[in-house]
Amino acid sequence: MPRTDSDLKHVDTHEAKWVYGFHLADCEGDGSMRDLLGGKGANLAQMSRLGLPVPPGFTVTTQACMSYHKQNGRFPSGLLEQVWRAVRKLEQQTQKQFGGSQQPLLLSVRSGAARSMPGMMDTVLNLGMNDRVCAALSVGSDHRRFALDAYRRLINMFGDVVMGIEHDAFEEHFDRIKTAHGALTDAELGEEGLIELLDAYKRIFASRTGKPFPQNPRVQLRHAIGAVLNSWNTPRAIAYREIHGITDLVGTAANVQTMVFGNLDPDSASGVGFTRNPATGENKLFGEYLRQAQGEDVVAGIRTPEPIGNLKKWKSRLYQELVRATRVLESHFRDMQDMEFTIEQGRLFVLQTRSGKRTAAAAVRIACDMVRHRLIDRREAVNRVDATQIMQLLLPSFDPSPGKEVLTCGLAASPGAATGKPAFTVDEALTRSNAGESIILVRSQTSADDVQGMHQASGVLTSTGGITSHAAVVARGWGKPCVVGAEQIHVEPARRRFTVNGRSVTWQDTISLDGASGEVMLGSVPMSAPGLSHHASTILNWADDCRTLGVRANADTPDDARRAREFGAEGIGLCRTEHMFFGEERIRAMQRMILAEDEKPRVAALDELLPFQREDFIGILSAMRGCPVTIRLLDPPLHEFLPTEADDQRELALELGISVAKLRRSIAQHHEANPMLGNRGCRLLITAPGVLEMQVRAIVEATIACRRKRIAARPQIMVPLVCHENELRLLRDQIERVVEQVPRALRFSGQLEIPIGTMIETPRAALTADRIARCADFFSFGTNDLTQMTLGISRDDVGSFMPLYLEKHVVDTDPFSSIDVQGVGQLIKTAVDLGRRRKPDIGIGICGEHGGEPNSIRFCQEAGVDYVSCSPFRVPVARLAAGHAAIAKDKERTSAK
Amino acid sequence: MPRTDSDLKHVDTHEAKWVYGFHLADCEGDGSMRDLLGGKGANLAQMSRLGLPVPPGFTVTTQACMSYHKQNGRFPSGLLEQVWRAVRKLEQQTQKQFGGSQQPLLLSVRSGAARSMPGMMDTVLNLGMNDRVCAALSVGSDHRRFALDAYRRLINMFGDVVMGIEHDAFEEHFDRIKTAHGALTDAELGEEGLIELLDAYKRIFASRTGKPFPQNPRVQLRHAIGAVLNSWNTPRAIAYREIHGITDLVGTAANVQTMVFGNLDPDSASGVGFTRNPATGENKLFGEYLRQAQGEDVVAGIRTPEPIGNLKKWKSRLYQELVRATRVLESHFRDMQDMEFTIEQGRLFVLQTRSGKRTAAAAVRIACDMVRHRLIDRREAVNRVDATQIMQLLLPSFDPSPGKEVLTCGLAASPGAATGKPAFTVDEALTRSNAGESIILVRSQTSADDVQGMHQASGVLTSTGGITSHAAVVARGWGKPCVVGAEQIHVEPARRRFTVNGRSVTWQDTISLDGASGEVMLGSVPMSAPGLSHHASTILNWADDCRTLGVRANADTPDDARRAREFGAEGIGLCRTEHMFFGEERIRAMQRMILAEDEKPRVAALDELLPFQREDFIGILSAMRGCPVTIRLLDPPLHEFLPTEADDQRELALELGISVAKLRRSIAQHHEANPMLGNRGCRLLITAPGVLEMQVRAIVEATIACRRKRIAARPQIMVPLVCHENELRLLRDQIERVVEQVPRALRFSGQLEIPIGTMIETPRAALTADRIARCADFFSFGTNDLTQMTLGISRDDVGSFMPLYLEKHVVDTDPFSSIDVQGVGQLIKTAVDLGRRRKPDIGIGICGEHGGEPNSIRFCQEAGVDYVSCSPFRVPVARLAAGHAAIAKDKERTSAK
Repeated sequence: MPRTDSDLKHVDTHEAKWVYGFHLADCEGDGSMRDLLGGKGANLAQMSRLGLPVPPGFTVTTQACMSYHKQNGRFPSGLLEQVWRAVRKLEQQTQKQFGGSQQPLLLSVRSGAARSMPGMMDTVLNLGMNDRVCAALSVGSDHRRFALDAYRRLINMFGDVVMGIEHDAFEEHFDRIKTAHGALTDAELGEEGLIELLDAYKRIFASRTGKPFPQNPRVQLRHAIGAVLNSWNTPRAIAYREIHGITDLVGTAANVQTMVFGNLDPDSASGVGFTRNPATGENKLFGEYLRQAQGEDVVAGIRTPEPIGNLKKWKSRLYQELVRATRVLESHFRDMQDMEFTIEQGRLFVLQTRSGKRTAAAAVRIACDMVRHRLIDRREAVNRVDATQIMQLLLPSFDPSPGKEVLTCGLAASPGAATGKPAFTVDEALTRSNAGESIILVRSQTSADDVQGMHQASGVLTSTGGITSHAAVVARGWGKPCVVGAEQIHVEPARRRFTVNGRSVTWQDTISLDGASGEVMLGSVPMSAPGLSHHASTILNWADDCRTLGVRANADTPDDARRAREFGAEGIGLCRTEHMFFGEERIRAMQRMILAEDEKPRVAALDELLPFQREDFIGILSAMRGCPVTIRLLDPPLHEFLPTEADDQRELALELGISVAKLRRSIAQHHEANPMLGNRGCRLLITAPGVLEMQVRAIVEATIACRRKRIAARPQIMVPLVCHENELRLLRDQIERVVEQVPRALRFSGQLEIPIGTMIETPRAALTADRIARCADFFSFGTNDLTQMTLGISRDDVGSFMPLYLEKHVVDTDPFSSIDVQGVGQLIKTAVDLGRRRKPDIGIGICGEHGGEPNSIRFCQEAGVDYVSCSPFRVPVARLAAGHAAIAKDKERTSAK
Repeated sequence: MPRTDSDLKHVDTHEAKWVYGFHLADCEGDGSMRDLLGGKGANLAQMSRLGLPVPPGFTVTTQACMSYHKQNGRFPSGLLEQVWRAVRKLEQQTQKQFGGSQQPLLLSVRSGAARSMPGMMDTVLNLGMNDRVCAALSVGSDHRRFALDAYRRLINMFGDVVMGIEHDAFEEHFDRIKTAHGALTDAELGEEGLIELLDAYKRIFASRTGKPFPQNPRVQLRHAIGAVLNSWNTPRAIAYREIHGITDLVGTAANVQTMVFGNLDPDSASGVGFTRNPATGENKLFGEYLRQAQGEDVVAGIRTPEPIGNLKKWKSRLYQELVRATRVLESHFRDMQDMEFTIEQGRLFVLQTRSGKRTAAAAVRIACDMVRHRLIDRREAVNRVDATQIMQLLLPSFDPSPGKEVLTCGLAASPGAATGKPAFTVDEALTRSNAGESIILVRSQTSADDVQGMHQASGVLTSTGGITSHAAVVARGWGKPCVVGAEQIHVEPARRRFTVNGRSVTWQDTISLDGASGEVMLGSVPMSAPGLSHHASTILNWADDCRTLGVRANADTPDDARRAREFGAEGIGLCRTEHMFFGEERIRAMQRMILAEDEKPRVAALDELLPFQREDFIGILSAMRGCPVTIRLLDPPLHEFLPTEADDQRELALELGISVAKLRRSIAQHHEANPMLGNRGCRLLITAPGVLEMQVRAIVEATIACRRKRIAARPQIMVPLVCHENELRLLRDQIERVVEQVPRALRFSGQLEIPIGTMIETPRAALTADRIARCADFFSFGTNDLTQMTLGISRDDVGSFMPLYLEKHVVDTDPFSSIDVQGVGQLIKTAVDLGRRRKPDIGIGICGEHGGEPNSIRFCQEAGVDYVSCSPFRVPVARLAAGHAAIAKDKERTSAK
């Protein structure tokens, strides 16, 4: 806040342009001026320039903000003069007067930097209101309540945001007076109550600041602008910029804009409109509005708004005007827009527009449609679809089963199918879902407090609110099934139940939610496996045309392999063999092998396992015909195959004919203090006799069996956990020996070329990749283990500190979700460079969870990896993200030229 | 073996010099020609050149070996001619005839490359012996037995080494015939038995090779030379060179030398002499000999030899000749020599000389003496003492207690004091010492088979053998206490006891061994703490003058700190604080802190711990007055402080007033799958409230308390397990806050400069050391954890595969003993570079086991580390090794110029 006007006299004399106006007639900025006007200011200027009915106003520039801080909180020379000039211009255009009692001009002030940034001051509304204006407006009884309400809002916001009086100080009185007047909601409080409230607010203001609430509108405005500029340097804002490495912004802009009121009279309304349907992507104006209400009332979901179609009947001309506005906006922004509008005394105003959030289904449809209508090209269409979001398209949907019992039907707010038991509070949702229950969060409406519970729930159901309500927006963002405005439902949290049409559904009942139809059903309705829609396939095919990274899948069974192919995987990058030993018939043989004390029973057990392995491999190789299948030899420590429960131990001992005590001793011998860093991977293959031979034999025999059936089988053999070249050299010799012997034994004369490679998952392997490359035909980064070892963090034990690390911004993202570029990424780059230097044609991939995560995929593109491998369901994500990465790289290359 | 002589006709015609003779009169080589003549050949030439009585001979060069292999096993042109010429010269000089029956010349052939290398052929003796020679020698009955014995040895060695007949085939017959003739030892077998044996050996030779034993001495010699050259390319020799990266050698030389016989007649003897005392370093001829015996009999320890002093009486002239030889050798080689000599019919021959193995005490004394006599300079003296060996000087010795019961006194073969229970076989020694018993290996004599058992034992006691016997040499090499030739002892392995002077000592009794006096005592005699001798201190001070690396100690208690200073530590590089919580009064407070469910009991427990910590720090800081003390904040996971045994749990629950079940749940919550990678180190400091504050407060309060007592306290605070700069930033803030607050609270106005640094022990920390350096005043590499994470190997779980890895040469050394230079070393170098680039004056040390290991110290010197820190007992090792590293670096720099 600037001290006094007199302070301003001593600043530098060079007068710059600090203020850019936006009026229909005369607009000084445009959408390209984000750096100077901030995102919001540039957008308002652009809409104005496009001829849309934006309430006129002006923007104080980010340069002014910088100047203000350089001068230790003094307005730069000329700023205030330019502000008052701009205000006069608004008065002329609106035919209203700032501080005038006849046609009072009320203004809002909002901050807005070039990038969205939490921690800064947001909004002060209704500037220009004071005792005189309020009294004047109250003369006509039409607007009396409106004026009182606007005034108390101003004192509250100004006191809170500008003067730093905590919001609760006001809220306390509001609650007290509401109770005294028997009002349940804010809206129910009558004029007398509001007058009482105003007095209370003024008293709080005076006692907290030592001065009465400023009656001079100019003082109000000057202080509000100062508060916006100050908010750039709050500790929270500074911390945010530091943490996110934002160094290229000079300050925030302040946007001053004429207020319009959707709650002024019965001819007023507020609404939200999407230029296309955000759930399905249908190219048709979509939205809703509330008569005689402000914008926040629509979003809050307290009253259920009317669908936008009703506007056609109520105000046909305004409806047409709105449709025209959507066309203008879309053809300019070339994207689906989410706009806020207000109707004030029969006049339409567009307040804000931004790219609209949408479901994945809508995203792919809109992108395809826009290509067809030549609004965007294919690469742009690929870029328009969020890679993570596309996972939603693989959500299951309910079978069209005839027997399902539909309880009621609400608004289809976010597609997908969910089955679970109702929970009625966030705490309940958290506790029960953490305990493993599938939960449907059932609320009359939701707010920010409910977000955590919504996140844990399988689906969300509300009895009020529209498809732009809080619950709907949040659920769509996550791709979580959601039904809102199911008005027949009566929620009774205290009794842990809801009633619907006279029927009671408790927390112990199971319900099913269809977010695509809005249906709420009793019981568990069968779901069907997901597939890719036509639009999604189109986008993914376009992404395939763009990308240079290969996409493979991690799959251990023929079923997974088939699914991976359906989703577009070009091979299997990681086929784990350990899961194959857990089958009922197999685990016993495995256990006998592990516990064998000499050669004979060990060989017998291995011989028993061989045919199982061979059949597994035949199945997978057949499913992937023609595509490479990278088979990783046994990796986990042997104790994972031994029973830990006393009953299981007794059973096993009985079967092996040994005492339980002896079995326990054997098991104890296999115990390790840190199994992650113990005898597993290649260490096991070196120390446990016969395992490698059995597995390689099974692979070679399976390959030969396929070839004899004319199936093109392309196995690759991968050795896990190598940390020294000599480990790989030793095992490669053994593998090659078996690969040579088996065809001779089977009298197979065809060519068998089976590449032999290794995981790079210890830091040492990455650091010595040149040496390791001498014995490896390919590398595959096991980023899970590599992350564990590079950071020294066990993924299993991360729970006790990682949440706090994220909260305290020690790390920005969980390194097990997205590759830690600085540490693990550095090792990957080193290994790629060293490996390629030694062997230019070496194949390099990554497997592990990171293979399906968009930021990690972008990193892989930069690091020069050949392909990523991820779980089958993530394959579409990876295809799309790889497309994005290739497009981004192209852009960089182009801009570098 | 070359095929036939006719093969040799077709090789290249260029004739080079393949043979270098060494005779007193005419010596063609010298000690500098190791590459051409091999180590042994160059040494023989040099001794010859120095005028020592070396049995004459000649060396076939390494070039000849190379040529031989290039021509696929054909002797190079001219080689054999040169050999026959050289043999003729020997005949002339010795007045004997090769294959002659009157004065037969017998020859030996030995391999010898420029570097010692196992896996190659060793020796064939007595070449030139055949039926005719044997018969001629047998005429005089004096030499009959000698001749028969020499002949049977030739057939055995030639058959084994040249023709590849396994030694056992011969040995079997030897055993059979000895039994038949009632002979217990080889020496007891009479002439008749030997004749029988000779016949048997000839039959074996003929049946295995298809040809009779070659009677032509030239054929014998040609084949023996061929066998030596072939042995260069045995698979074992090739593997050895590959593994050790030996690529600069072209082949082995073959040394052909006149045989002399210490067992020829009563005027003959064999002996071993040291130019100085290898146990004490005293500058006096030291050694022993056996009359009418061969050299191997002296070493085998079957008969106890006479001390060298006896020679003075027996053959005074020869004794003087021997003393003269030692002077010549020492002044040439400028080092204490270990020489073998033979007296044949009253003539002295020096067979071999090499630098003598010595105890650490002898090494430091000899080095000091040689500097005083200007044989070497101080730097050379430093280099002469093995760094690891100096640990021996810190071995405890027995108190001079009056009550000790001396059982007997043997030869003081290797100094040091050991107490333990007798074990009589290697197996027993291994089993019992693995079970935790301290063992004294008691044998009549030892051989290569006993080495493993000797290694495991605390000390070695033998009833026969001299101070150059197998047991003595091996024990001295390891610095293990050893008493040999305790002839009053009668060992009875079958009864697991020995008797001495009518008294029986069983495996259950405890005995004490004084390797410095030779005393064997009953019971456990008290030992005194070690100190550094005058000579050792001198060498270490000279090393200090050479070295540039600092040496600090890892010490957690005032006692350790004092010991560290006594041994020359310049500070404490690692003071672990966790051990301070295990004291009886402390562990309960620690447990209450960990299990506290809210703030109050936690704070109370921390308050209780504070004074203990403060007193600990006062003690350590006082002990190290003036030297830096790096205090590491709490590192291990909290569950290490909680009881695992049911009884302890019950006791704790009772004390805390909670149920055992509840306590167990709490303990279970602290369980981690991989504690090494879990919530410990800085993670703990971030998540466990109050611990850091308590520890830092204790450090600051201790520092102030010291300063007030005018003790210069220099603490440094070290944060463990950092993997991200933000962790350190967060904790540094907290530490600085306490460091600021405490002095104010205590009204202390002096300057407190407490550097704050971090361990570098995760790969990520090393990779991002530039970022971390921003918040660190110093780095200390925790090479234990860094090795674990870089290699992905848990030190606790390494037992199941590391032995096999070493055996299979997957790795050459255990990476936990000596730094893995390729992997971990690379990270260290990276971190040093990155850290220094960001902050040139950042202090950099290493702590962890590697800090006291000579190879790792050499690496640290190269990597540019400032200091190493190791356990107090290792400090002298580190000082010396750091001296060596600095000298080596200087040499490199000089030779690079």
